Amino acid sequence: MTEIFQALFAPASVAVIGASDNPNKVGGRPIHYMRHFGYAGEVFPVNPGRTTIQGYRAYPTLHDIGRAPEAAVIAVSGDATLEQVRLCAEAGVRAAVIMASGFAETGEAGRRRQQQLVDAANAGGMRLVGPNAQGTANFASGAVLNFSTMFMEVTPQDGPVAIISQSGAASVMPYALLRQAGLGVRYLVATGNDADLDACAMTAAVAGDPEVRLILVYLESITDPAALARAAALARSRGASIVAVKAGSSQHGARAAASHTGALVGNDAAIDAFLARHGIWRARDIGELVRAVPLYLQGHVPGQGRTVVMSHSGAVGVMSADLAERHGLPLAALQPSTLDRLGAILPEFGTAGNPLDMTAALMGKGDMFPRVLDTLGADPQADMLMVGIPVAGPGYDVEALARDAAAFSSRLGKPLVASAPQQNVRAAFVRHGVPTFVTEADAVAALAQYAGHARLAGAAAEPEVEPEAGWPALQPLDGIGLQDEARSLTLLAEAGVPVVPYRCCANADDAVAAFAALGGGAVVVKGCAAEVPHKSEHGLVHLRLADAPAVAQAAEACLATLRSLGVASPRVVVASMVRGRHEFALGVSVDPVFGPLVMIGEGGTLLELRKDVVTLLAPFTVADVKAACARLRLAPLFNGYRDIPVLDLDALAASAVALGNWALRHRGTLKSVDINPLMVMAAGDGVVAVDAVVELQGA
Amino acid sequence: MTEIFQALFAPASVAVIGASDNPNKVGGRPIHYMRHFGYAGEVFPVNPGRTTIQGYRAYPTLHDIGRAPEAAVIAVSGDATLEQVRLCAEAGVRAAVIMASGFAETGEAGRRRQQQLVDAANAGGMRLVGPNAQGTANFASGAVLNFSTMFMEVTPQDGPVAIISQSGAASVMPYALLRQAGLGVRYLVATGNDADLDACAMTAAVAGDPEVRLILVYLESITDPAALARAAALARSRGASIVAVKAGSSQHGARAAASHTGALVGNDAAIDAFLARHGIWRARDIGELVRAVPLYLQGHVPGQGRTVVMSHSGAVGVMSADLAERHGLPLAALQPSTLDRLGAILPEFGTAGNPLDMTAALMGKGDMFPRVLDTLGADPQADMLMVGIPVAGPGYDVEALARDAAAFSSRLGKPLVASAPQQNVRAAFVRHGVPTFVTEADAVAALAQYAGHARLAGAAAEPEVEPEAGWPALQPLDGIGLQDEARSLTLLAEAGVPVVPYRCCANADDAVAAFAALGGGAVVVKGCAAEVPHKSEHGLVHLRLADAPAVAQAAEACLATLRSLGVASPRVVVASMVRGRHEFALGVSVDPVFGPLVMIGEGGTLLELRKDVVTLLAPFTVADVKAACARLRLAPLFNGYRDIPVLDLDALAASAVALGNWALRHRGTLKSVDINPLMVMAAGDGVVAVDAVVELQGA
Repeated sequence: MTEIFQALFAPASVAVIGASDNPNKVGGRPIHYMRHFGYAGEVFPVNPGRTTIQGYRAYPTLHDIGRAPEAAVIAVSGDATLEQVRLCAEAGVRAAVIMASGFAETGEAGRRRQQQLVDAANAGGMRLVGPNAQGTANFASGAVLNFSTMFMEVTPQDGPVAIISQSGAASVMPYALLRQAGLGVRYLVATGNDADLDACAMTAAVAGDPEVRLILVYLESITDPAALARAAALARSRGASIVAVKAGSSQHGARAAASHTGALVGNDAAIDAFLARHGIWRARDIGELVRAVPLYLQGHVPGQGRTVVMSHSGAVGVMSADLAERHGLPLAALQPSTLDRLGAILPEFGTAGNPLDMTAALMGKGDMFPRVLDTLGADPQADMLMVGIPVAGPGYDVEALARDAAAFSSRLGKPLVASAPQQNVRAAFVRHGVPTFVTEADAVAALAQYAGHARLAGAAAEPEVEPEAGWPALQPLDGIGLQDEARSLTLLAEAGVPVVPYRCCANADDAVAAFAALGGGAVVVKGCAAEVPHKSEHGLVHLRLADAPAVAQAAEACLATLRSLGVASPRVVVASMVRGRHEFALGVSVDPVFGPLVMIGEGGTLLELRKDVVTLLAPFTVADVKAACARLRLAPLFNGYRDIPVLDLDALAASAVALGNWALRHRGTLKSVDINPLMVMAAGDGVVAVDAVVELQGA
Repeated sequence: MTEIFQALFAPASVAVIGASDNPNKVGGRPIHYMRHFGYAGEVFPVNPGRTTIQGYRAYPTLHDIGRAPEAAVIAVSGDATLEQVRLCAEAGVRAAVIMASGFAETGEAGRRRQQQLVDAANAGGMRLVGPNAQGTANFASGAVLNFSTMFMEVTPQDGPVAIISQSGAASVMPYALLRQAGLGVRYLVATGNDADLDACAMTAAVAGDPEVRLILVYLESITDPAALARAAALARSRGASIVAVKAGSSQHGARAAASHTGALVGNDAAIDAFLARHGIWRARDIGELVRAVPLYLQGHVPGQGRTVVMSHSGAVGVMSADLAERHGLPLAALQPSTLDRLGAILPEFGTAGNPLDMTAALMGKGDMFPRVLDTLGADPQADMLMVGIPVAGPGYDVEALARDAAAFSSRLGKPLVASAPQQNVRAAFVRHGVPTFVTEADAVAALAQYAGHARLAGAAAEPEVEPEAGWPALQPLDGIGLQDEARSLTLLAEAGVPVVPYRCCANADDAVAAFAALGGGAVVVKGCAAEVPHKSEHGLVHLRLADAPAVAQAAEACLATLRSLGVASPRVVVASMVRGRHEFALGVSVDPVFGPLVMIGEGGTLLELRKDVVTLLAPFTVADVKAACARLRLAPLFNGYRDIPVLDLDALAASAVALGNWALRHRGTLKSVDINPLMVMAAGDGVVAVDAVVELQGA
């Protein structure tokens, strides 16, 4: 951890400016918390009106302390904040938490005042958390520079979890849920407006603590993707995990974009792709954020996630199988020898299978359960176990079940969870350290997340090559706004995407000459003007023209239509007719934060209705494209389907990779690319871009 | 309630055969429960070895009681059960619960033994619950003919909920969750093997109790759809609701079926359609089964479900908006006058909108919250409210918030829920009767279910017309198995589906004559043989034939190919070429339990990959078809899209209705119908079935 984070999380001394003797005021709570939660450093309350505050000597001003505290909490009102930031920075304070609101969240004037805070702090070498921040807390050191009332109600306890959030409320909600479940939390940080040290930087900071096993993150915007990527790499490098809620997806459904790709992709797909690439699991809400925490903290290896469901109720098995299918959790296909052995152990009405119905006899016989566990443990197909206890009562030795389950899980290092609606049954399993859930639905969801996250983290990219280092320098593209078809096809050919043979012509004679030059086969004639991207709606596409008079007539018609639409220099594209085995679409939408997102999917005019698309964040590999394409509904086409032969996925993937790399090089000036259709041929015969629109930034 | 159900749920006397003095034995628990849970009738333990059992006089045999008990629990082993059933029936017992297992669930021999039980009982006018049943319980009367250990652990209390389940475990899981949340349950029935009185009949029985507001049902098979439909109608008629888990959907993903429709539809779609038609909400697991119970019990009217989210945290608003979108819960568009009034009430940094950010000031000011509620209450757009309390502590008057929220909800009769991660905050809201959840996710899901269920129940069919009464009697279709194309098209034309003009020919000369008879326009020639349903895979489809020689050549080729495939009497279909504006598919799969399911979706060879289909359970109306088609991804086509004109949805719907009614009439002999493509024309131009396979039962 850098010195700055040392200054926030384990400072030798903390000044609280705007300190209050009342522990229920914003300026009183941090003092109260440090006093009660074991902070061993010095606390300097600053308040001109008092000599002592909550038992500490108080100082009229920061200057009166006589030396620089390492950290400061600035808990004065918004108007007075700038002056205090300046004084702290001048005095040599290393880091300060700014609690006042009324800055960037209120509009442009507030944003300017906020920048003044940052400038004043940084001028003196001081870093800021906030403004509008609930603040930081380290419950290991007791340094609680945080005014949440939550810690009054739900007592902190150190543990291997860190919570980093842009929102105060979203920082304490998972805290409350974890603490009420008896789990410890070390760091709790609510960064507010992220003017200087932001939530991404804080995540990177706590990722460096070797005792942190799991970082829970709440973000409404990803202000510094590179810092978050570094945090993820650091966490992965030592086996720690990051689970994040990125809220606000409903506002990102679709961007108002000229490009079909932009409309289909939306910003949220960029966030999904970014988080997945870095091995960060995306939870959709606070419940999902905390649900699998006990599994992460236990840290057993989920293998391929093949799960055995066992219960003394057939219904639990049936429901769990439904749930496993819904969550994509594979049920283990137990080996025949395992089933034989289970058959010998189980009573008459039991079912040796998966789900495994042990019948009520499970509860009475002391050694049946451990024998079943041992048998399952010897089967390499069984990666994880779920034990459903829908009911227990007199005659059920729940304590023994819990003990046996916990012992099995520790001994083999295999994840095992229990579910039980009865509070006292859950309590027994929790006492023995078994991750325990109220419903099968939660248990299955937690196992699916845990196994899925391990897979994601295993496939996560090595620390991303900075585009500046790994790729040719950013190259500007000439032009602004929509490019006409001829220019678009030229650009794509430069990018390395195979394009249809074509000529661009300004009159019918040239069009006829182009028809001959293209070999005399059937051609398409299309109007070509940047102002008219949607050609078919204006009758500007003439297909299957097989002789010169037809070409001339089509060219004249297009040119006349373009003139009538106000195009000053109308032209036509004459292109060979190409017929693929299926029409795909390939596109790019350049996200201002994450860079180019490449979309691949079924093409044609119904692209946006069928929405059978996948997206990839550039740069990516051919293998990445193939893995993504396997998620398309039309994926079976790539292996041949009915009368459609095996399609050329290699060529499709190569074009997507080339397009992604090209978009990355030009991401400063490129806005979007729509190739629709991209004709995909039979394996070995390649792909051809037939129709394309490139949009550059500006205009 | 009929006398039989009176005999089970409020009998004057109960014999327990195989009674035990040990309350932890199967034959001891019902006695223990009746003794402790207020049963006022007589209890007759039957056990040849004892004179008293649990304080009751015991009888060596049923006969020794000297008169017929109204109900009996038969808790002897499987082998001894039949004799006891016989004795009970002969003695005049009205209804008996059979607890022993080892019957139909073990295979064919067990099924025969089970039928003997039913026959023996019914011969004496006695009805059975079970075998393999945990039994029945009525906690209002204290008649607990049930051996679950759960009631030892989680004490019963009467309330307006009934739980009916085929599984014992699945009956007590929701019971435990509800009771631990302080909610009362009146009926709890686990029916086991459903040999006589089944879960559907039990649901109908408890639906007749005017004090039951909500029935929770767990089913693994729907053994008597008509009884469940009657239960649903009865419940709806008095404003009670049914929520059901139908487990085992993962086994029903797709039937092994020759027809594409059968493969696409699966059995689970039939269940969805059946439950929806009868206003029964389908929950996917036990957690969902109980989640919205407090809303049902409160019974406020959800209107159109337009919800206002309010919190003192912006993050809760952002997350709730995401969740609302995910669950299809509409956020209320508040009226401008409401927003003006809210703006005047809220503090500086609050946001008068929806979600409504009241800031932390909410917690301090005594009258802000009720004023906000009053303002929202006056807005007819605000149907339901959700209050998110992510954190509370000193200075927060949670009690007042809970009281104000509860008063508002009762006064206006509008559903209002709270969510809070802190246990003590939830407790305050629960004390005031506010439905309360741990996470926003659960709160939003519960509201979405409650409003969605009200919509479903409002649209539910009137008690279904029995097909026997409302439709022409079942008419058998001649033939078995797959029908060739000519017969298939003939049948569909009879059904009322427009089919392409065609002729069926046995040689090339006839084919040429047919070409002329069809008007001389382009035709298609297809091989016609029931044995070869997948024509295109054998090169048996020749399109766009415009002259007699081409027709003759195609016919010869098809006939030769069919001969080479072993078809004894090969024929060809000569049909006019029809080109629609888009290719749809229309199909039927006759479910053995629910009858014909009609599928409508995008057609073409990629039908089964694109899976853009909806299903309807026959009979249904044109309006039902239109509502279902609005859920297709391609729904925008029906209003015109790009260069595709408005399509003839009226004709598509009319064909679907006709096909559904025809399938209903012939459901005894029809197995499936695949029409693909069904060419859909521009509005007013109709639809045409171009290619079809009808499959009849048998072979």
